[in-house]
Amino acid sequence: MSQSFDIAVVGATGTVGETLVELLAEREFPIGTLHLLASIESAGASVPFRGKNLRVRDVAEFDFSQVRLAFFAAGEAVSRSFADRASQAGCAVIDLSGALDDAKPLVPEANAGLLGELAPPYRVSSPSASAVALACALAPLASLGIERVTVTACLAVSSRGREGVNELARQTAELLNARPLEPRFFDRQVAFNVLAQPDAVDGDGHAQLERRLARELKALLVAPTLDVAATCVLVPVFFGDSLSVSLQVREDVDLARVLERLEAAPGIELVERDDYPTAVGDAVGQDVIYVGRVRKGLEDPRQVNLWIASDNVRKGAALNAVQSGELLIKHYL
Amino acid sequence: MSQSFDIAVVGATGTVGETLVELLAEREFPIGTLHLLASIESAGASVPFRGKNLRVRDVAEFDFSQVRLAFFAAGEAVSRSFADRASQAGCAVIDLSGALDDAKPLVPEANAGLLGELAPPYRVSSPSASAVALACALAPLASLGIERVTVTACLAVSSRGREGVNELARQTAELLNARPLEPRFFDRQVAFNVLAQPDAVDGDGHAQLERRLARELKALLVAPTLDVAATCVLVPVFFGDSLSVSLQVREDVDLARVLERLEAAPGIELVERDDYPTAVGDAVGQDVIYVGRVRKGLEDPRQVNLWIASDNVRKGAALNAVQSGELLIKHYL
Repeated sequence: MSQSFDIAVVGATGTVGETLVELLAEREFPIGTLHLLASIESAGASVPFRGKNLRVRDVAEFDFSQVRLAFFAAGEAVSRSFADRASQAGCAVIDLSGALDDAKPLVPEANAGLLGELAPPYRVSSPSASAVALACALAPLASLGIERVTVTACLAVSSRGREGVNELARQTAELLNARPLEPRFFDRQVAFNVLAQPDAVDGDGHAQLERRLARELKALLVAPTLDVAATCVLVPVFFGDSLSVSLQVREDVDLARVLERLEAAPGIELVERDDYPTAVGDAVGQDVIYVGRVRKGLEDPRQVNLWIASDNVRKGAALNAVQSGELLIKHYL
Repeated sequence: MSQSFDIAVVGATGTVGETLVELLAEREFPIGTLHLLASIESAGASVPFRGKNLRVRDVAEFDFSQVRLAFFAAGEAVSRSFADRASQAGCAVIDLSGALDDAKPLVPEANAGLLGELAPPYRVSSPSASAVALACALAPLASLGIERVTVTACLAVSSRGREGVNELARQTAELLNARPLEPRFFDRQVAFNVLAQPDAVDGDGHAQLERRLARELKALLVAPTLDVAATCVLVPVFFGDSLSVSLQVREDVDLARVLERLEAAPGIELVERDDYPTAVGDAVGQDVIYVGRVRKGLEDPRQVNLWIASDNVRKGAALNAVQSGELLIKHYL
C-alpha cells in the first residue's frame, strides 16, 4: 500500500488509546498525519509515535474533515458527543466504547464480510474485549451449529482503565502491609477477592457489560437466535481476561474436528491437553487469543467446553480496532 | 444431649483440620476425649482445644476402637491407608478427602435423609467445598426440575492447603517488590493470574476435581440424570470460593418463587438485587453460603443464573463435616 491516510485517535492518553497508538506504529499503518485527541481534561499531554512526541489536543476543537478515519477510545460520553460529528464530516469511525447503537460490531477474524454491507461514511464498533475473544474462538466452530453459549468472563481490572489497575495495586500493597483497606475506585475490596459484577445491573439483574457481550456475540457470529448466558466478574488480575465457556451444539461433537478447526483458525493459539493457557503467562502482550482445555461434556455428547485467555487491552481492544482499520483502508476507503 | 462421645480428628494440623477442631469447641460438640492425629510428619505438634494444648499423635499408632467417630481431614493418602481400619474397629468415619469410593456424600442442608439408608459403622464423605456450596444453593430449587448445571468455580488457593496460601502470599510480595518470580508450589504464576485447572486432567481433559464435583452434586441432589458441566479454576484469592452458576430447568422460571425458596432455605444468606456477595467481604468466616445475582436468562425463560460465595475451608469443609457429625451422633450413634 503506497497510499497513506490522515487519521485521528480520540482518547490517546488512556490505557487502550496508548496501546492503539503503539500498534499503529508497530504495524506500519499507512498514516500521513496522526492527530491525537482527548477530552479537555487530558489535552496537552504528549504521546510518543514513531520517535516523536505528539501533543494531544482537545477533541472538541478538532475538525474531523481533516481525517479519513477516526478511532474513538475515550469512553461512552466522548463517543456520544463527537462520533456523529466525525461521521458528518465524512470520516470513517471505529468506536471502542460500545456507545453507538448504529455502529455494527466488527472482529476481522469473525465477520470481515460486514464491511461489504456498509456504506460510507463507515461506522463500526470494536466490541467489548470478551466479545472479541469469544468471536475469534467460536467463529471457526460455527458449522457445529452452536445453540447456546454459557460464559463466565473473569475480567482483569484494566477493563476499567488505569484507575482499575492503580486501585488493585494500591489495595494489594495495603493488605500485604497489614494496613486497613479503604476501597476507592471499586466499591469494595478487589485484591484477593472476586467482584461478582463488572458494572451496574438493570432491573432484571443483568450487568450492562453482560447485555453488551450477548448482543455483540450474536451479531459477530451472525446468529440472532443464539442463546447467550453471560456472567462477567472482576478478578484481581491487572491485564488479561480469562473466559470459561460451555457450548451446546446441534449434533454430537467430533472433538478431533473441533481441535482441527481451532488449530487452523486465524488469531488463535491452541494449547494442547498436557498444558493450559493463562492470561499472564501466555496471552498478555500477544496478538492472538489462547484457547485450551477443549473437552466434551462429562456426559452430554453435544457439549464442548473450553478456556480462553486474551489480552483485553491489546488483542481485545486496541489491536482489534487497528485490524478493523486495516481492513477498512485496504478495501473500502 | 447429655451423652458424650470420644472422637478422633485425623489431619488436625492442616488448614481444614485446625478449623474443624475450632468448630468442635465453638459448637460444643459433646466430646468425651478428643484424639488429634496426623501422619508421622506432623505428629508431635500441639493444637489448642477448650483452653488446653492437645498433642497430635501418629495416626498409624492409633487404636480406632477407642473412639465412636473419626473425621479424616488429612488428604487422600491418609484416608486410603487408615479409614478402613477405623471402620473395621466399628468407628463411624466422616471423610473429607474424597478418596473413599464407598462413602456417600452428605450435606445436611441437602440430603440429611441419607443416613437413614446407611448402616453402622457409618461411612460418609464430606464433599468438595464447591459441591457443598452448590448443594446448599440448589437443593431448595430441586422442585424446579433442574436438568443442567453449568458451573465455573473460582477456587481460593487454600483449596490446596497451607502451601497454596503461602505460595500466593510469597508470589504477590515478590511481584510487588519487582523481584523475578520463580513459581514453587504451583507450576506457574498464580498471583494476579487465573490458573485454568485445579489439578491434573484425565485423557478426556477433565480435572479430577471437576469429575468429583459432578459426581457429588448428582448424589447430593439425588439426580442421577442431571447434566453437570463443571470448570474449576484457581484464582488469586486466599480464602473463599466464588461460583458462577447457570441452570436449565424443566419449565419457565418464576423468579419470585426462586427467591422465596432461597430465602427460606437453611444455610443460605440471599443477597438482594442492589448488592452482590463476595468471598472476602461476605462469606469468609461465616457458617452460611451467600447467594446473589439471581436472574433469569437474557432470553431463555427456562434459565436461572446465580452467584455463590462460600468459605471453602470453614463452610465448605470443616463445618459441613462437623454438621454431619452432629447429625450422626444425634440420630444414629
